Amino acid sequence: MMATRCGSLTVQLLRCCTLMLVFAGLVAAAPTTRRFKWDVEYIMWAPDCQQSVMIGINGKFPGPTIEANAGDLISVEVTNSMHTEGLVIHWHGIRQIGTPWADGTAAISQCPINGGETFTYEFVADKPGTFFYHGHYGMQRAAGLYGSLIVNGTDQQKEPYADEYDGELNMLLSDWYHENVYAQAAGLDGKGKHWEWVGEPQTLLINGRGQFDCSLAIERDRKTCDRRKTDAYCKEGDKSERCELIRRSECGPFCEGTQCAPVVFDVEPGKTYRLRIASTTSLSALNVHVEGHKLTVVEADGNSVAPFEVDDIDIYSGESYSVLLKTDQRPQAYWISVGVRGRKPKTPNALAILKYTTSKSEWPAAVPPATPAWDNVTRSKEFTYKIKAREGTPRPPTTVDRRILMLNTQNYVDEHIKWAINHVTLSLPNTPYLGAYFYGVESVAFDAATESPDTFDRGYDIKKPPEAQAPAAQAETAVSNRVYKVANGTVVDVVLQNANALEAGVSESHPWHLHGHDFWVLGYGEGMYEHDRDFKKLDVTSPPLRNTVVLFPNGWTALRFVADNPGVWAFHCHIEPHLHLGMGVIIAEGMERLHELNVPKEAVMCGQATRAAVPLAPATSPSPPSP
Amino acid sequence: MMATRCGSLTVQLLRCCTLMLVFAGLVAAAPTTRRFKWDVEYIMWAPDCQQSVMIGINGKFPGPTIEANAGDLISVEVTNSMHTEGLVIHWHGIRQIGTPWADGTAAISQCPINGGETFTYEFVADKPGTFFYHGHYGMQRAAGLYGSLIVNGTDQQKEPYADEYDGELNMLLSDWYHENVYAQAAGLDGKGKHWEWVGEPQTLLINGRGQFDCSLAIERDRKTCDRRKTDAYCKEGDKSERCELIRRSECGPFCEGTQCAPVVFDVEPGKTYRLRIASTTSLSALNVHVEGHKLTVVEADGNSVAPFEVDDIDIYSGESYSVLLKTDQRPQAYWISVGVRGRKPKTPNALAILKYTTSKSEWPAAVPPATPAWDNVTRSKEFTYKIKAREGTPRPPTTVDRRILMLNTQNYVDEHIKWAINHVTLSLPNTPYLGAYFYGVESVAFDAATESPDTFDRGYDIKKPPEAQAPAAQAETAVSNRVYKVANGTVVDVVLQNANALEAGVSESHPWHLHGHDFWVLGYGEGMYEHDRDFKKLDVTSPPLRNTVVLFPNGWTALRFVADNPGVWAFHCHIEPHLHLGMGVIIAEGMERLHELNVPKEAVMCGQATRAAVPLAPATSPSPPSP
Repeated sequence: MMATRCGSLTVQLLRCCTLMLVFAGLVAAAPTTRRFKWDVEYIMWAPDCQQSVMIGINGKFPGPTIEANAGDLISVEVTNSMHTEGLVIHWHGIRQIGTPWADGTAAISQCPINGGETFTYEFVADKPGTFFYHGHYGMQRAAGLYGSLIVNGTDQQKEPYADEYDGELNMLLSDWYHENVYAQAAGLDGKGKHWEWVGEPQTLLINGRGQFDCSLAIERDRKTCDRRKTDAYCKEGDKSERCELIRRSECGPFCEGTQCAPVVFDVEPGKTYRLRIASTTSLSALNVHVEGHKLTVVEADGNSVAPFEVDDIDIYSGESYSVLLKTDQRPQAYWISVGVRGRKPKTPNALAILKYTTSKSEWPAAVPPATPAWDNVTRSKEFTYKIKAREGTPRPPTTVDRRILMLNTQNYVDEHIKWAINHVTLSLPNTPYLGAYFYGVESVAFDAATESPDTFDRGYDIKKPPEAQAPAAQAETAVSNRVYKVANGTVVDVVLQNANALEAGVSESHPWHLHGHDFWVLGYGEGMYEHDRDFKKLDVTSPPLRNTVVLFPNGWTALRFVADNPGVWAFHCHIEPHLHLGMGVIIAEGMERLHELNVPKEAVMCGQATRAAVPLAPATSPSPPSP
Repeated sequence: MMATRCGSLTVQLLRCCTLMLVFAGLVAAAPTTRRFKWDVEYIMWAPDCQQSVMIGINGKFPGPTIEANAGDLISVEVTNSMHTEGLVIHWHGIRQIGTPWADGTAAISQCPINGGETFTYEFVADKPGTFFYHGHYGMQRAAGLYGSLIVNGTDQQKEPYADEYDGELNMLLSDWYHENVYAQAAGLDGKGKHWEWVGEPQTLLINGRGQFDCSLAIERDRKTCDRRKTDAYCKEGDKSERCELIRRSECGPFCEGTQCAPVVFDVEPGKTYRLRIASTTSLSALNVHVEGHKLTVVEADGNSVAPFEVDDIDIYSGESYSVLLKTDQRPQAYWISVGVRGRKPKTPNALAILKYTTSKSEWPAAVPPATPAWDNVTRSKEFTYKIKAREGTPRPPTTVDRRILMLNTQNYVDEHIKWAINHVTLSLPNTPYLGAYFYGVESVAFDAATESPDTFDRGYDIKKPPEAQAPAAQAETAVSNRVYKVANGTVVDVVLQNANALEAGVSESHPWHLHGHDFWVLGYGEGMYEHDRDFKKLDVTSPPLRNTVVLFPNGWTALRFVADNPGVWAFHCHIEPHLHLGMGVIIAEGMERLHELNVPKEAVMCGQATRAAVPLAPATSPSPPSP
């Protein structure tokens, strides 16, 4: 046994392949409550064969997969055993309709669960789809606090492609740094020459497994391992970047039972599988390629899309997809190769194995397939633009109540490097907004007097760095915890406008994720968004729904949502260090209806909310004297 | 310039030597308020020439030295900029008379200051002495959260040796691990084969500076550094342990301005200096030797002791001393050598330099002096037993109201390794005890129904491991947050009784520290304490006062205190991983008088105290509609 075979070796990865061919989507059971009990603690783990301290759940990394049916109530009792660190867990893609305090965003929807405390998240799995959960406090996601959340369709909420597949595979993608998140944060918080960028991750992980340096794994137990020669996959003397990456990343057989053995998906020939893919990377945009197999995209972020076939998919942090994969090739083992997009990769590809049950060999014979060139943005756009709504997708309202333009810039603020939206960089308050509104302490808890700006100076030249702007378009970047206040029922259009970063000639991709909602992706464009010119080109009749959307370099992305879910929601770049540097906004939505909700006191009473509460009278009765 | 010279290079270390010859102890000023504003954050620092993430204060490690006069009010506004980690700061040696909420013990006296929050500690520097401050939440002390706290004598509170010295030097000792505290905690929390002991520290630090591997410092800047041959200090071919340690620890000149350059204390010849020495080590017991100079001990933990002269001093974590040092030797540079006691040292000695201002050379010519053999316990006892009260020291009450015997054992609990006192291992609640009492929520906040046991089965054989005990003396180890309730005014005698650890033949030293008090050290003994036999040998008439006392292997230590300071106080082994493993007890003292105190709500309202509070009515007025 050379690797982690799903359903046999590792209970933890059981969900990664469902060998029993479930005829999916036909769950007829009545909604039920799915209860989970989690202990979150530091664990020593070797996700890429190198031992590190990570945040684990119930002693393992990644966290357990949650599986539920649409309509089920999910109840997760979380105990924080991390001593000094608080925590929250965000259920990414769950809209938290009527339960905004369960969204798991520290300083926004909830107080941190402090060390020793227990908090129970209860929320409805409101629709079928491929989701995940992760820490949403500081950079705890990057420390390993995440796992899969899969919501199956039901008779009542049937996925339109439910009858088209025989079995499921699940792949949660992430990236991993050897430098701990405290040091990463220290670097990002540094002033002037002490500022230090986190750099590229050391390893990409598939279901929490990667291989940083194979020799490490092998040296741990030479008796049961031998290293396959890399020459089998890359000709000797070939010193191309690709081969160098392969030599670093692909190591042949691994010691049985190590935490970093590659994932093997066992599949039966002649079937169709639904491969679920979600990305919770800290930084990396990824591409997923399954050697020798076409992929038909059917789901994006829990929403059905008009099916389209591709050789590989791009996936940004915060996104999820389902693709249908037919096991119609020669019965052997194939590589699943995951590579970096958009940033010059210093991180080798992650590899998993798709193995036909009738395969004679354990390992693929070929060289792992290359993923597309990292800097081919055109190819990324082609993939993204193919995503259209499937027939039957709800359509957006046609009347727009509010339009918000959001300029994404990178700025210096007091010698710190920050990201800003309309010249405001997000600084979270120590009182969760939801608690501040619930207890009526907005004015002391955050800057409630000033609202976040709906636009920016149209003279801003997005092709130039901030300091090269004309004087009229120069604006001081404010560090602020202010919000967008949006009344219940408002239809909001947002245009994300990208711009040049601090360095001339550099503009980055940013995957923006909205909490509490799906939104319609109305369209994308190059350069500066000009409403009169561009609005009419948007697809406002049948655009796809998503919860995360990419903003391409030097371009814009338009989206629409209906403010029908009272709560305080984050809308932010899903790149962990970008959010850390302030790249997000807060939407306080339908606060006038907050009192209709049953906000649990323990979720939101901390910071200024606590100060505003009236304590019980101190105990005045004497204690019994000591014996 | 080869090293950090006090008063010139480094403002941070300015206090480490007071070249201006202050005629000490004659401060006549009226009590004043000393205000400090601290930002606690992760910093990248190289305390031993290796870069690590540490907890810094105002961007530096160690934290700034606080200096005050006896009677002054010290006010420290602490802002937590660590994102996800809470923090508290304990003012070690300050009795917090009337301000128990300012003692800075998480889950005991105070809620953690969460990320983004600010809390102001205000307390009176109640008496002159050599103190320090440090984190008291999880293992944050070991992460670098500490600094010196020096309280000068005044006309009203004059130290009896105030006229005997011309200047002051200050030395805060600590130890440093390359593995971060989260990983250390993960190891200590591990179950069964996942349990991992922290091991020995990599480096000892003097005022936050040590040298792990000199070559690292030198390689950073070869231009300004050259490595002095170790042969000058240890003959070639001498492979003794001592010489090996010297080869590792002693490196000759260091690069100017590095964070790990050794401390140089400049002294004038023909003077007497008060050398303050405090130890905030995580693990190590230490010995301090000043080459060629005798030391006269005059202060222990802020209490005057009858002066005695020694060649070197032992110091356990949590202790502090002042020694008088005469600069009566040849005017040259001398080594100050700090080595490990009590555990087989894998950590090289720390070195600093005492340099006469008239010295011709920058560096000592001799081999750094060896500190005593680590396993010479007899020598340690000899030093400790020499500590007697100075004339004028307050005497203990002669009537004892309560006697508590505390058996220190190491035990397995559910495959975890723990330390226990009378078969109870301390597990802190998520609601600070002080808040639980103040708001009358003891019963829900911790086990208030069961009191900590005042004794243990006298059939327990302290020479055998727990599992080798006779059936009658076997006791299950309870994990509990229960307390000792002590009524105001009670005179309490405690006998700490050491025993064999889990491994046969092993018994360790434990420095026990009491919060909120000084106590009288009545005596020490070998083997099992037998009251009828041993009590009469105790010094109950003029014993020395301390706040920390060592419990020697296989022996006992007796102490007395008066419960005259209402508050909830920790009494615990000051070894960080030992406390982490439960080696402490909680004393809830004078709780019947708690209502007389002005406990600030923000100090204690978290956990169950928050749940018990009555919140303001939720806001019901609608927010203004969005524009």
